[in-house]
Amino acid sequence: MSTVWNSRYALRTLRCKGSTIRELLKITQRPEVISFAGGLPAPDVFPVKRFEESCRAVLEQHGAKALQYGPTEGYEPLREMIARNMARYGILAHPENVLITTGSQQALDLIGKLLINSRDRVLVEAPSYLGALQAFNVYGAQFLPVLLDDDGLRTDQLENALRQKPKFMYILPNFQNPAGVTLSQARRHQLIFLADRYGIPIVEDDPYGQLRYEGEHLTPLVVLDHRNLRKDDGFTLGNVIYLSTFSKTLAPGIRLAWIVAPVEVIGKLVLLKQAADLHTATFNQMVAYEVAKDGFLDQHVKLIRQVYRERRDSMLQALAEFFPSEVTWTRPQGGLFLWVTLPEGTDCRALFRAALAENVAFVPGDCFYANGNGEGCRHMRLNFSYSEPELIREGIRRLSLAVKMHVRTAHPALV
Amino acid sequence: MSTVWNSRYALRTLRCKGSTIRELLKITQRPEVISFAGGLPAPDVFPVKRFEESCRAVLEQHGAKALQYGPTEGYEPLREMIARNMARYGILAHPENVLITTGSQQALDLIGKLLINSRDRVLVEAPSYLGALQAFNVYGAQFLPVLLDDDGLRTDQLENALRQKPKFMYILPNFQNPAGVTLSQARRHQLIFLADRYGIPIVEDDPYGQLRYEGEHLTPLVVLDHRNLRKDDGFTLGNVIYLSTFSKTLAPGIRLAWIVAPVEVIGKLVLLKQAADLHTATFNQMVAYEVAKDGFLDQHVKLIRQVYRERRDSMLQALAEFFPSEVTWTRPQGGLFLWVTLPEGTDCRALFRAALAENVAFVPGDCFYANGNGEGCRHMRLNFSYSEPELIREGIRRLSLAVKMHVRTAHPALV
Repeated sequence: MSTVWNSRYALRTLRCKGSTIRELLKITQRPEVISFAGGLPAPDVFPVKRFEESCRAVLEQHGAKALQYGPTEGYEPLREMIARNMARYGILAHPENVLITTGSQQALDLIGKLLINSRDRVLVEAPSYLGALQAFNVYGAQFLPVLLDDDGLRTDQLENALRQKPKFMYILPNFQNPAGVTLSQARRHQLIFLADRYGIPIVEDDPYGQLRYEGEHLTPLVVLDHRNLRKDDGFTLGNVIYLSTFSKTLAPGIRLAWIVAPVEVIGKLVLLKQAADLHTATFNQMVAYEVAKDGFLDQHVKLIRQVYRERRDSMLQALAEFFPSEVTWTRPQGGLFLWVTLPEGTDCRALFRAALAENVAFVPGDCFYANGNGEGCRHMRLNFSYSEPELIREGIRRLSLAVKMHVRTAHPALV
Repeated sequence: MSTVWNSRYALRTLRCKGSTIRELLKITQRPEVISFAGGLPAPDVFPVKRFEESCRAVLEQHGAKALQYGPTEGYEPLREMIARNMARYGILAHPENVLITTGSQQALDLIGKLLINSRDRVLVEAPSYLGALQAFNVYGAQFLPVLLDDDGLRTDQLENALRQKPKFMYILPNFQNPAGVTLSQARRHQLIFLADRYGIPIVEDDPYGQLRYEGEHLTPLVVLDHRNLRKDDGFTLGNVIYLSTFSKTLAPGIRLAWIVAPVEVIGKLVLLKQAADLHTATFNQMVAYEVAKDGFLDQHVKLIRQVYRERRDSMLQALAEFFPSEVTWTRPQGGLFLWVTLPEGTDCRALFRAALAENVAFVPGDCFYANGNGEGCRHMRLNFSYSEPELIREGIRRLSLAVKMHVRTAHPALV
């Protein structure tokens, strides 16, 4: 019998394609490896007991509803809770502005499906979140990368890119993945000003916003955008789609996130979501609501901040202690990652192999550059949320051995 | 600020577009309405207690794993269990042939994404499952409908359609949604023969296969296809993608289904799924495994068969008792639906409104025709799984009032 599995997409390969990073991550799961590679929350802060009680409560009180099909938009009390919680950050959304998604990755997929025609340009930070690049890549996006520095997106380089008429900008303003940097307040204003001038929408991805360990909370782009509006009901007019998630505050294994957008955009996304997976699991939404309610989520986020701050500090200390002076790194005020810059000419893939030999792992920086910027080869992303402080210290010590050897051996080649 | 929400797709409207059927279903949720409209499993057979015990067991024994990110392919013990269970039906899949999806709707979306280029033809049954039409529609499919009769797809009409080179055929062989008919064994052989001759792959959607209330189990298409293969390892070569789900045997509110396909197809679908939602909720997969294991799922399916058989019989009896002789209906041997054919010239939308006035609901048949075949207007889909037998009898009595009035008033107009 003939086999005709024609594939629509050549599955265009990003420089670091899905399968490659998946292979990397499999290697790093060997028990003897200290991994800074994943983007995993610390399992020791999962509120397991609270989940257990919540599952019991939901099944005992609403079993028939929790196990049944539900509305595509999401579980109404959860949408209301999300709207209430976001109001504290100045995001004035009604429940009908909130669409529950099966993780933020689905939000990115639905946005790609709605907005990207093949060969449309999408403006992204360089480096940017690999999952977003993959999601947009499926729909044939051509990427317009704009560089980051310690204050986030280089807004001074933005206009050149905007003149090339991207369909939208994809921005991670807080504790960026992978770079760990935060967009300064001044640049936020400038970004919104330019988005307005050029009429380019923004997708603001904010998975880590609540995980700030120091410094002042900065205004979300969606809030700055609304201030520009003349009408009261900003959510019929706004130019920013805002994304957030429970993956970093409750648990990623329940796949729950949300999109905030104008009602007409939500309406279109709902139709696409209906065709994509009907709705997000009713049971998960009801359990998450039960877990989060009565102030539990707020208390729990405080605990996570405390644990992750300690881990970040422990990584920063170890880096200062063990790493050679030619190497620099970002000092994230929150989130899960920091970004290391090695001397020019360093090959992060070779360093990755050397690190594995020392039983320590990271993600090579080239994975995060949409257009395979060679610049990426000097970088590595380090996750500090997953491992305990002592392990972080030991891991950085091991990594420093690979780095020192590598920097030593790399330099002669540069001469 | 200018608002630029350009939409990639005009969201091409099917004759019965998502929003329309969603509106219908909302109306039918009024408590006084007896609804035969949804495709809902009976909530009274959800194994709520078993779910409760399983959630506790999973969280106590594997809390950190269950709430963490997981592999895109799915939870390994669940893939193994599915492979074992399918072997009983002759489907010889290895775990690596199984991809866990976020409900069967996601399976349809991923298949559409992989196989459909805009304007590609997709061969579908007429009528067919609305969710599949919506999923394929998003990718710009043009539908080639082939009619059904009481023995399923009219394979005598298949060659004409196959000559138009559809990208694949989408077939629901068992207790079809919406028509309730089953593809005969002879036609299964003929379908596989023609698929082979024309080199057209088949997507076999089998959500209800285990819910047979009478008659003999018929061989799945994927099994017939493999018998045609010369090599031992059929799953490197097969021409059928097989889909099934836990939605009808355990519960739809956990969104768990699976795809069986050759390893190379699974590999491509995994990359697309990674970009679509990273992976299906770890927690749900582990809980479903815990619920299903040790023979519970088999016992539970027996209970469901018993309950649904009684409901089907109760609907068939009530139809015979209350409906006028001009009306006919299918006698499904399993599944959730039967399909009513009204006299020529009947307008099922007008009948729908008349039925609602009697506080009873169904889905108008036109929703299930890909190309808006006017033929659909003579039909209605009735679900018999959701309501208890006495309610079914009362609902059919109410519906018969609307039908009798409608058939009487419709006929004069035909003269």
